[in-house]
Amino acid sequence: MSEIRYTVGVIGLGLIGGSMALDLKRRGFADTVLGVENDPVAAQAALTIGLVDQVVSYEDCVAKADIVVVAVPVGTAVKMVPDILDRFAAQAAGRAEPFSSASLRDPVRANAPEKGSALPARGEQIVIDVCSTKEQICNATKYHPLRRQFVSTHPMAGTEYSGPWAAQPGLFDGRACIFADAQESAPSALKTIGQLYAVLNMRPLYMNASQHDLHTAYVSHISHVTSFALALTVLEKEQDEKHIFDLASGGFSSTVRLAKSNADMWVPILAQNHDNVLQVMDTYIEKMQEFREAIAAYDENKIRELIAQANKIKKILR
Amino acid sequence: MSEIRYTVGVIGLGLIGGSMALDLKRRGFADTVLGVENDPVAAQAALTIGLVDQVVSYEDCVAKADIVVVAVPVGTAVKMVPDILDRFAAQAAGRAEPFSSASLRDPVRANAPEKGSALPARGEQIVIDVCSTKEQICNATKYHPLRRQFVSTHPMAGTEYSGPWAAQPGLFDGRACIFADAQESAPSALKTIGQLYAVLNMRPLYMNASQHDLHTAYVSHISHVTSFALALTVLEKEQDEKHIFDLASGGFSSTVRLAKSNADMWVPILAQNHDNVLQVMDTYIEKMQEFREAIAAYDENKIRELIAQANKIKKILR
Repeated sequence: MSEIRYTVGVIGLGLIGGSMALDLKRRGFADTVLGVENDPVAAQAALTIGLVDQVVSYEDCVAKADIVVVAVPVGTAVKMVPDILDRFAAQAAGRAEPFSSASLRDPVRANAPEKGSALPARGEQIVIDVCSTKEQICNATKYHPLRRQFVSTHPMAGTEYSGPWAAQPGLFDGRACIFADAQESAPSALKTIGQLYAVLNMRPLYMNASQHDLHTAYVSHISHVTSFALALTVLEKEQDEKHIFDLASGGFSSTVRLAKSNADMWVPILAQNHDNVLQVMDTYIEKMQEFREAIAAYDENKIRELIAQANKIKKILR
Repeated sequence: MSEIRYTVGVIGLGLIGGSMALDLKRRGFADTVLGVENDPVAAQAALTIGLVDQVVSYEDCVAKADIVVVAVPVGTAVKMVPDILDRFAAQAAGRAEPFSSASLRDPVRANAPEKGSALPARGEQIVIDVCSTKEQICNATKYHPLRRQFVSTHPMAGTEYSGPWAAQPGLFDGRACIFADAQESAPSALKTIGQLYAVLNMRPLYMNASQHDLHTAYVSHISHVTSFALALTVLEKEQDEKHIFDLASGGFSSTVRLAKSNADMWVPILAQNHDNVLQVMDTYIEKMQEFREAIAAYDENKIRELIAQANKIKKILR
C-alpha cells in the first residue's frame, strides 16, 4: 500500500460513498475523510455511524480534499464534476500566481501541468466519479482544461439498499472496477486512483465510456428493469400480500431483490443509458414472447430448447 | 418429535428428494431411508454421499416404505402417484383377506379404512408428492379409492442446482410447505406428514390445488421465466463472454440465478400450469412495455413512478 495518506472528500454519503469512506479510512489510505451530504438526517447518521471524520460544505470539501469522490446520482454528477474541476482551477490559481481564465482554457497548459507548472507542493487534486453510466459524464468533461485531473470509474458493487445505513465494510472486495476513458486522465492521477481501488481490493478493468454503457445495460441495467417489472406484476395481481410473503421462496426473493433499488439512483441511469437500455429491453421482450408462444402452444420441445439455451449462463457465472 | 420411526422411501434422489432423505434420517424421523433412482450415476452418488441407506427398486420401495415420497418431475409424478396407490391397495389386499378390484374401487371402503378395516398392524402406507404444481396431480388422484392415503405437498425450498450433489442439510428449515387439498387426505395421514414437515422445520400452509397453482405462478414460476429470458438476452447479445464474467455484479447474478434451473423439472411445471403462467406473463410483458415507453419518451416522472410503485415490494419481502 502507498505510504501517502490522503485527505479524501466524499460527496454523497450513501451506500457507495459511505462504504468507500469506511474502508479507505480503516485501511489507511485516507488520513482524514470529509463528507458532504445534503440530507441532514443522513449527514447525522454518517457521523454517528462513523463513516466520516467530519461533515463539511461542498465548497470546503472541494477546497481541502486531495481526492474528491463524487458519489451522487449520475444526473447530478454530470453537472458536479465540471464544477469541481472549475474550482480546482480557481484554487490552483489562488495558491500559485494567478492565471487568467484564458490560460485556464489553454489545453496545452492544462494537459501538461507537470512541466513547469505553478501548482503548489500538495500535488494536483483529483476528482473521481463512481456512477453507473459513463458516456454522458465523460462527454460533459471531455474538453475541460483540467480533464486530466478527473478519473471516471465504476466500482461494480452494491446492494439493493441505499443511504448511509446501507454502507458496509468490504463491499468492494474482489469485485471489478471499470476505468472509463482512462487515456483522458493524467498518468499520475490514474496511478493514485489505481492505488485507491487496490486498497478496496478491486480488479481494474479499462474500457471506453460507450463500451461501458453498452455492457452494463446487459449485465446490470436490464436486471433492474426486469426486477421492477416483476414486482409491479406481482403487486398488481397478488392482492393478498400475505400470500406473497408466505409463498415467496428464495427464487422469487432473489429475482425481485433489485426492485427495492432507489429511484433517485435509477431514474437518471435509465434515462442516460436510454439507447442501450431500449435495445436490450427489446431483445428481452422478444425472448419473453418466444417463451410465451412455446408455453401457449404446449410445445414442450421448444420450452426445453429455450431452457437448455438459457442454462449456458452456468458456464459463465461463478 | 414423534417417537415412531418410519421406513421412508424416496423416489427421485435429486435436490429435494435427497435433502429430505438427509434430514429425515439425521433428525430421527426415519429409521431407514430407501431410495429409488433411475440414473445409475446419481444412484451411486446418493449412496456414496450417504443420502440413503439403500437404493432399491421402485417395486421394493413401494412395498416396504411406510411413507413414500415422490420427488420426480411433475409430469412423471402425475402418473406415478396413482400407480403407487394401486400398489398400496394390492399390498393391503395381499396382507389381509384378498379383496376384489371391485371392492378396491369402492369409495366407502377406501375412504373409511379405519372402521373395521382388514389392514395389517403396520398402519396404512402413505404417499406424498413434493411437486411444484398441484392441480393436475390432485385431479389425477381425485377419484382414486385410496385417495385418503395420498398427501399432496409443496415444500417451498430449493436452489438452482439439481441432482444428489445438490442435496443439503437444512434446506427446508424455516420455509413454508403447502398442503394442497388437504381435506382429501385421511386425518391420520395428514398428522403423520405434518410431523414429517415439522421435523424439517417447515411452516404448514393449507390451500386448494388451484389456488396453489395461481399463487406459485406469481411468486415462483414467473421468476424462472424472467430469469431464463434474461439469460437468453445476455447470451445472445453479449458475444464476449469474458465481459459478462468480468462485469456481472451481484445484481445480475441474483437476477439470472434461476436460469441455471433444470429443464427436466421446469418443462412440465410450465406446461402444467399453462393458464396461470400465461396470464402472469401477459401482465409482466405489459409492465415491461410500460417501462419501455417511459424510457423511450425520456419520461423521468413516469419512470420514477414505476420504480416507486415497484419499491413497495420492500414492505412484503423480508
